Amino acid sequence: MTDQQKTELLKRYKNGEIDEAEALKALKDAAFSDLGFAKIDLDRESRGGFPEVVYCEGKTAEQSLEIIRVLWERSEGNVLATRCSEETAAVVRAVLPEAEYLPLPRLLTLRRRPSEQRGHIAVITAGTSDLPVAEEAAVTAEIMGNRVTRIYDAGVAGIHRLLAHEEELTSANVLIVVAGMDGALPSVVGGLIKKPLIAVPTDVGYGASFHGLAALLAMLNSCSAGVTVVNINNGFGAAVAAGRVNELAAKEK
Amino acid sequence: MTDQQKTELLKRYKNGEIDEAEALKALKDAAFSDLGFAKIDLDRESRGGFPEVVYCEGKTAEQSLEIIRVLWERSEGNVLATRCSEETAAVVRAVLPEAEYLPLPRLLTLRRRPSEQRGHIAVITAGTSDLPVAEEAAVTAEIMGNRVTRIYDAGVAGIHRLLAHEEELTSANVLIVVAGMDGALPSVVGGLIKKPLIAVPTDVGYGASFHGLAALLAMLNSCSAGVTVVNINNGFGAAVAAGRVNELAAKEK
Amino acid sequence: MTDQQKTELLKRYKNGEIDEAEALKALKDAAFSDLGFAKIDLDRESRGGFPEVVYCEGKTAEQSLEIIRVLWERSEGNVLATRCSEETAAVVRAVLPEAEYLPLPRLLTLRRRPSEQRGHIAVITAGTSDLPVAEEAAVTAEIMGNRVTRIYDAGVAGIHRLLAHEEELTSANVLIVVAGMDGALPSVVGGLIKKPLIAVPTDVGYGASFHGLAALLAMLNSCSAGVTVVNINNGFGAAVAAGRVNELAAKEK
Amino acid sequence: MTDQQKTELLKRYKNGEIDEAEALKALKDAAFSDLGFAKIDLDRESRGGFPEVVYCEGKTAEQSLEIIRVLWERSEGNVLATRCSEETAAVVRAVLPEAEYLPLPRLLTLRRRPSEQRGHIAVITAGTSDLPVAEEAAVTAEIMGNRVTRIYDAGVAGIHRLLAHEEELTSANVLIVVAGMDGALPSVVGGLIKKPLIAVPTDVGYGASFHGLAALLAMLNSCSAGVTVVNINNGFGAAVAAGRVNELAAKEK
Amino acid sequence: MTDQQKTELLKRYKNGEIDEAEALKALKDAAFSDLGFAKIDLDRESRGGFPEVVYCEGKTAEQSLEIIRVLWERSEGNVLATRCSEETAAVVRAVLPEAEYLPLPRLLTLRRRPSEQRGHIAVITAGTSDLPVAEEAAVTAEIMGNRVTRIYDAGVAGIHRLLAHEEELTSANVLIVVAGMDGALPSVVGGLIKKPLIAVPTDVGYGASFHGLAALLAMLNSCSAGVTVVNINNGFGAAVAAGRVNELAAKEK
Amino acid sequence: MTDQQKTELLKRYKNGEIDEAEALKALKDAAFSDLGFAKIDLDRESRGGFPEVVYCEGKTAEQSLEIIRVLWERSEGNVLATRCSEETAAVVRAVLPEAEYLPLPRLLTLRRRPSEQRGHIAVITAGTSDLPVAEEAAVTAEIMGNRVTRIYDAGVAGIHRLLAHEEELTSANVLIVVAGMDGALPSVVGGLIKKPLIAVPTDVGYGASFHGLAALLAMLNSCSAGVTVVNINNGFGAAVAAGRVNELAAKEK
Amino acid sequence: MTDQQKTELLKRYKNGEIDEAEALKALKDAAFSDLGFAKIDLDRESRGGFPEVVYCEGKTAEQSLEIIRVLWERSEGNVLATRCSEETAAVVRAVLPEAEYLPLPRLLTLRRRPSEQRGHIAVITAGTSDLPVAEEAAVTAEIMGNRVTRIYDAGVAGIHRLLAHEEELTSANVLIVVAGMDGALPSVVGGLIKKPLIAVPTDVGYGASFHGLAALLAMLNSCSAGVTVVNINNGFGAAVAAGRVNELAAKEK
Amino acid sequence: MTDQQKTELLKRYKNGEIDEAEALKALKDAAFSDLGFAKIDLDRESRGGFPEVVYCEGKTAEQSLEIIRVLWERSEGNVLATRCSEETAAVVRAVLPEAEYLPLPRLLTLRRRPSEQRGHIAVITAGTSDLPVAEEAAVTAEIMGNRVTRIYDAGVAGIHRLLAHEEELTSANVLIVVAGMDGALPSVVGGLIKKPLIAVPTDVGYGASFHGLAALLAMLNSCSAGVTVVNINNGFGAAVAAGRVNELAAKEK
Repeated sequence: MTDQQKTELLKRYKNGEIDEAEALKALKDAAFSDLGFAKIDLDRESRGGFPEVVYCEGKTAEQSLEIIRVLWERSEGNVLATRCSEETAAVVRAVLPEAEYLPLPRLLTLRRRPSEQRGHIAVITAGTSDLPVAEEAAVTAEIMGNRVTRIYDAGVAGIHRLLAHEEELTSANVLIVVAGMDGALPSVVGGLIKKPLIAVPTDVGYGASFHGLAALLAMLNSCSAGVTVVNINNGFGAAVAAGRVNELAAKEK
Repeated sequence: MTDQQKTELLKRYKNGEIDEAEALKALKDAAFSDLGFAKIDLDRESRGGFPEVVYCEGKTAEQSLEIIRVLWERSEGNVLATRCSEETAAVVRAVLPEAEYLPLPRLLTLRRRPSEQRGHIAVITAGTSDLPVAEEAAVTAEIMGNRVTRIYDAGVAGIHRLLAHEEELTSANVLIVVAGMDGALPSVVGGLIKKPLIAVPTDVGYGASFHGLAALLAMLNSCSAGVTVVNINNGFGAAVAAGRVNELAAKEK
Repeated sequence: MTDQQKTELLKRYKNGEIDEAEALKALKDAAFSDLGFAKIDLDRESRGGFPEVVYCEGKTAEQSLEIIRVLWERSEGNVLATRCSEETAAVVRAVLPEAEYLPLPRLLTLRRRPSEQRGHIAVITAGTSDLPVAEEAAVTAEIMGNRVTRIYDAGVAGIHRLLAHEEELTSANVLIVVAGMDGALPSVVGGLIKKPLIAVPTDVGYGASFHGLAALLAMLNSCSAGVTVVNINNGFGAAVAAGRVNELAAKEK
Repeated sequence: MTDQQKTELLKRYKNGEIDEAEALKALKDAAFSDLGFAKIDLDRESRGGFPEVVYCEGKTAEQSLEIIRVLWERSEGNVLATRCSEETAAVVRAVLPEAEYLPLPRLLTLRRRPSEQRGHIAVITAGTSDLPVAEEAAVTAEIMGNRVTRIYDAGVAGIHRLLAHEEELTSANVLIVVAGMDGALPSVVGGLIKKPLIAVPTDVGYGASFHGLAALLAMLNSCSAGVTVVNINNGFGAAVAAGRVNELAAKEK
Repeated sequence: MTDQQKTELLKRYKNGEIDEAEALKALKDAAFSDLGFAKIDLDRESRGGFPEVVYCEGKTAEQSLEIIRVLWERSEGNVLATRCSEETAAVVRAVLPEAEYLPLPRLLTLRRRPSEQRGHIAVITAGTSDLPVAEEAAVTAEIMGNRVTRIYDAGVAGIHRLLAHEEELTSANVLIVVAGMDGALPSVVGGLIKKPLIAVPTDVGYGASFHGLAALLAMLNSCSAGVTVVNINNGFGAAVAAGRVNELAAKEK
Repeated sequence: MTDQQKTELLKRYKNGEIDEAEALKALKDAAFSDLGFAKIDLDRESRGGFPEVVYCEGKTAEQSLEIIRVLWERSEGNVLATRCSEETAAVVRAVLPEAEYLPLPRLLTLRRRPSEQRGHIAVITAGTSDLPVAEEAAVTAEIMGNRVTRIYDAGVAGIHRLLAHEEELTSANVLIVVAGMDGALPSVVGGLIKKPLIAVPTDVGYGASFHGLAALLAMLNSCSAGVTVVNINNGFGAAVAAGRVNELAAKEK
Repeated sequence: MTDQQKTELLKRYKNGEIDEAEALKALKDAAFSDLGFAKIDLDRESRGGFPEVVYCEGKTAEQSLEIIRVLWERSEGNVLATRCSEETAAVVRAVLPEAEYLPLPRLLTLRRRPSEQRGHIAVITAGTSDLPVAEEAAVTAEIMGNRVTRIYDAGVAGIHRLLAHEEELTSANVLIVVAGMDGALPSVVGGLIKKPLIAVPTDVGYGASFHGLAALLAMLNSCSAGVTVVNINNGFGAAVAAGRVNELAAKEK
Repeated sequence: MTDQQKTELLKRYKNGEIDEAEALKALKDAAFSDLGFAKIDLDRESRGGFPEVVYCEGKTAEQSLEIIRVLWERSEGNVLATRCSEETAAVVRAVLPEAEYLPLPRLLTLRRRPSEQRGHIAVITAGTSDLPVAEEAAVTAEIMGNRVTRIYDAGVAGIHRLLAHEEELTSANVLIVVAGMDGALPSVVGGLIKKPLIAVPTDVGYGASFHGLAALLAMLNSCSAGVTVVNINNGFGAAVAAGRVNELAAKEK
């Protein structure tokens, strides 16, 4: 339901064409589709700039398919499914062959129209093992209309690898810095570049990394002021946050 | 040392006017003042937009005073000292009577010129007990040149108090949401307003809040995508991060 | 052994018809059946309102079968087995084909008589991934004689989905609110509806959700007073607690 | 603002007597009083059955006083302040001499009318050291209109002390069981009495009690199904939850 | 090497029959057999009352076999292998067919002579799921020469099941109490019976049991003084400790 | 009430001399004295070998005094109060001047008759800083009738200091080993001496000792089988447990 | 790029033979090879004494192969791959048949020239289950040019097994002590031998070892001053650290 | 007792001049002085290169004094007391006025002879607040005979401050790197300088630094191989470890 349709509806209610119960029901039906196990938000795009994203973990393949299908059929934008296993992807693609699947970041996408190409977000990783999380961030950012630069495997143990990319770093609007183990990279990047910086801890490491806790705590305690942090392995969340900053920059022009 | 001065210096080195050792020493002296117990970054303002901030916790009052004094005398901007106890503030103000002290957020400021009035950052708290952290964020943001709107005591247990401020929320460039206990407020605000949102957990609460851990974890796991998080009670860090976003928006214009 | 039978027994002991040893043995035999690896409580229904529930996790399929079989043969009520794997269910159903198995909440039931239809408990989830836990709660509540209303996928990131169900929420005697990730839903529901509210954290989420710890802590620190909490994923426990409240309401009439 | 007043207001808006802006402002003003540092909820009693409670921890004495004063002057019910230090109590009583202070549970009360005397809640403690928390629960329950029975120092190490009170336990509508150390008491009470039972862990104990964590975890894992849990030392929260159950029982009559 | 043999050796050294190097080598060879990956303690029985026990976890099946074989061939007592997988058991039994395997407690035994029948140790469990740990304790205690009474599934949620065994409990020299979940059973037993009591937490439970942490902490904080605790699931360790107490009682006679 | 008195009472009930209510009341009165804030166990000595011990932490000085006074007046044995602050001790000694106070272990004792001199318990510490806990154990053991040998400051960093006491170690019935920091001492002692060994972790250490957690975990994971553990700093609990073992040895003679 | 080549390049830049951009590009190309998913450090050997080590965990087999291949072809030294699964090893060896694979420590090596034979590092383990970690340390140390002595299964529960190796311990330059469970071995070894000692906690143990946390904390709190610690199971890191000490000793000669 | 004295003693025993008991006693008396509450290691210097260090925390001022006095009178070297409060220092200096006290690192020293001046250890801190720990390390290293270079306040947020000291860093034998908050400095230093590096986490920081846990975990997970770690704030331990490496380098010459 577009904003215009809603205004229309409210007028009809004020004029007495429809009563309160009818008005409420119309608004409710338009707002989401209730599948019983899920309430699909059909109104999201107007509010958030992109369609509801499907988080597949913890859902059966059939539940994921059903939600994706309704979103694809009843919205007009693109669809993104995250944490999507190969099994679920196969079930979805049997019904919706236009879906694309990326196994490394475990993302499934359905694209109806090309994404915008706003600003420029840099995604940096400390190591190669951080790629699945970094790609979740990069692909999510792209489908939401952002231009993305990837700088991978540039950890602090060989800091010259990072310094070689200074130009790309300074030209970005936002930086997403992905690191496991000691989580030290955001502090170093944040000390060099004064841009909004979103740190993503990964569960790369072993022993006392405690599945990413070490990197998470290090990033929360970064000695470089201005670093903000998302959940362990949450490349998706970092991309959404970065996208909002990038969008804001574009809007202000 | 301004960027121009540095270019000058490099030219003189290339022309052979000064040798390598002289060039390096000149650069080093300009970059920071070494007090033995501290290396004061005199170059920070050109790089980061404001002078080095003094973090007083863990420093003796004399160390804090000395660092503040050097910054105030050798830089040209404003000076901010955080986590400053009343004792330290008294020691500083005996020598630098122009310093102002705010006991609630434990901030000490020295202002030489009025701050800019960029954009608009909203600082929201769940309860009254979150004020010290919120004020640390608000005052820091102001001294760094941002306009700030305060919306205090608007927690989710009485959600109508939040909804009454929707207009101020939607007009802000960035939101700083400060909450202790269950840390639920950023999820609710983030579900309503699609702007960059920085969540600040506080140690308000008791028992199983574990000094803010409960709020921190809740915020890292926010079901509203795009929320980013800083350390417990870190109002200062949230303000720096929000300021960078706000500055970016202004620059892009 | 019914209360009447026990009174009878005690009279016979006082009258000298049986001696102390005989009386004690009779009481003991009636109270539970000792299988060596398990002492089955045959007396539970009179005390707790429903037969002993079998918790299958950590038991071999054979142990579970044996306990279920004795309960089914020697009690007069319904039987419920929780955390029952598909393998155990198959072993049980080979012997007791009247058993029904629900794979999502991993429950196995044997029903001899229809359950009562007391009052009305609402089970609410934040997301679709919380369904297994919610269904464990809902089915358990139903077999124990409660009427249940399900409101699924109504998390705080899209709070309008929750508000659409206000009527069902206010008419319930008790609310069971199931949520993972940030565990924020009980705070929001508890701020709107002043009814006994039992919060169930789930392990839905990743990274710093630490298998439900984040949601658990958030719920324990809920800023909505009056929220009580059960163990992570403990839909069964929430249903028992809610049932007791519902039963109390009925009794008081 | 009573419900009737609100209906009135809405009618005037529909009739065009007042416009949308006026209606919204009237509703907002009636709902809470904004002191800047706090938004006092004047509408709470109609929704929750008792006036807003003031949580004093983390507030200055002056902030607490101001909130209490507004509540006392602008509402018609009783006022309760929790976690109130002796210092804050002295500041409040200098201005509002009718306030009463209880140092053990650190509660301050202002009573305008006698509380109801609904049903019957039993508060049980494992030891004497649990009394401050138990009294917070008991006094809170009383001021909210519940009759309370206290059974103190009845821990499982001397279980005969508990059994001596069986009658009082079985006649209660709800049980609040307060225990530190091993947190075992709710499991034992819950095995004997099939009533709604709210367990309150306390930080009594030392070493590996980790300030109540041991008791909290034990209670969340209670082998007696149907136990629900509140935060460590949260006697207030337990009383609110118990009061809702008790109220429900009364209403259903 | 017996104590007598050692005395002999030392005499020969004093008399100058052998030099220091020879003496040391003889003692060293007698003390343990060095397989490179393991030093097998052939001297253990004289010091500890039973042969070295083989802990199989983390060893390859071949390593376990080799150690068991040397112990069996070069010592004169019984051999016990703990945490022995079915795979390792099969490898061992292919070479040493006299080995017996118990899959529930995952123990493998080689018995050359009947064990003593000292005193009497009671092993009590809270539930059926605790049996693997309880059997590890019971079988270990038996092979080390103790008489064992098993009382299984006697948890505090149905305390009458425990009270029915009071006689067996009071006649034991030592009690081993095995419980998961809330770990409350040792507190209740310890309140009734004043005997040495060793509590064994198990990882039975889910969610906030954190793999036995809840039970472990509860037991360490037992309100029944005199309870001592071993590691989670450590039935073996509890049996060794109980055996020492039992042995002491026997020796003192 | 002695066991004989109880038998008497039961006979009178059977004979009809007293009715059920009278019998129950007599038993209850004899069992404990109810002060409201505390139920004092007057029967404990017959059941547990010594009067109820008063744990002063978390009690007001007045509560502690009252409990100690009742125990001293109504029981016939010695009285022990643990975790007793200097303030509480002063309050008690003002009323009961025969009380003795030991500031290091914070124990207060009232002795009416000399303690027995059973067996022999060795208390060993790793360092001098562990003395308060060790003395709590030693004095408690002595007042409960055990002979105690103290071996202090014999940690593993200088293992020859321990070996110099081998004789005293091997002649003891039970060993209490007190250590903070790495908690390694029980493993070393347990490897040398095959006696019941109770390990007491202390909070001695800093940083990652986490107030004794490091030592606690090390002791629970001791590679010397047969070590059992009590709570951090719980010298009292270790003494009770050791006393039971020592008593058992004596009884068996 | 050798240091000489770099000096050459800088001269050509000063002489004006190449401009700044060319100089920078040449330096960058020489420093690392950028595969997109990884930046391979070809310059490492000159800086660190051995080629970049490939950490295979979290990389696909194809990524690992590609990195190993480039290193092998473009450097002149040996190559070491750690945490290498059997699957990855098979993929690598299909292309590079000269690679050797060691399944126990999961290491893959490619040797072009014999390693040096510097000094002497002793690797000691508490038990046989610690071997995989110990071998990771030992083989790493050997390929980096150190002589290694292995002393395995010498834990504190049978301390005579350790004392039998005193000579080898005192002659080593550095000690690597590997232990799980209680992590007590480094304290005992460090008390006997005053050499640099690197402690490696392993995840050997169960229950409250919490995957090596117990051993890690014990080692960090070692009562033997001078013990330093690496991450849980980090045999590789211990070897690198020990190698640096050994190298330093050699260089100083 | 010197090594020569011990050889003498053993000869007299072999010759029969003294019997076994006399020999053992002589050795024991020489090894340590037993004060009851402490066993002072008089033999330590010959074994460890410096006299026993007194750790004052947890000891009364009188205990500390007594131990320091005996060490000073009966050994021939210097004496060091760590974690010494101002109160204890005053008590010691009243009796031993030659003692010097350093309040920042809380060290007390008694020097009889000048320390050696071996090699060169660099102590680096991230910030000014880390100075107390760094000075504990530096002064300890000096009194044990090492030359020390201090580089303070050189954290990664302003990495040019570190790079300005490259020369001093590369010329050191060992590096001690002290940092709180994110603990990132050792990773950066370790990436630049290939020398033995000992990382010391400090409790500088707040919120989710959890008293140094964040820095500790980051350092244990350092992406720069070869970093080893000591306990939080353990400057003393780092100095001892670094001193052993430095000594080894010197000895090998």
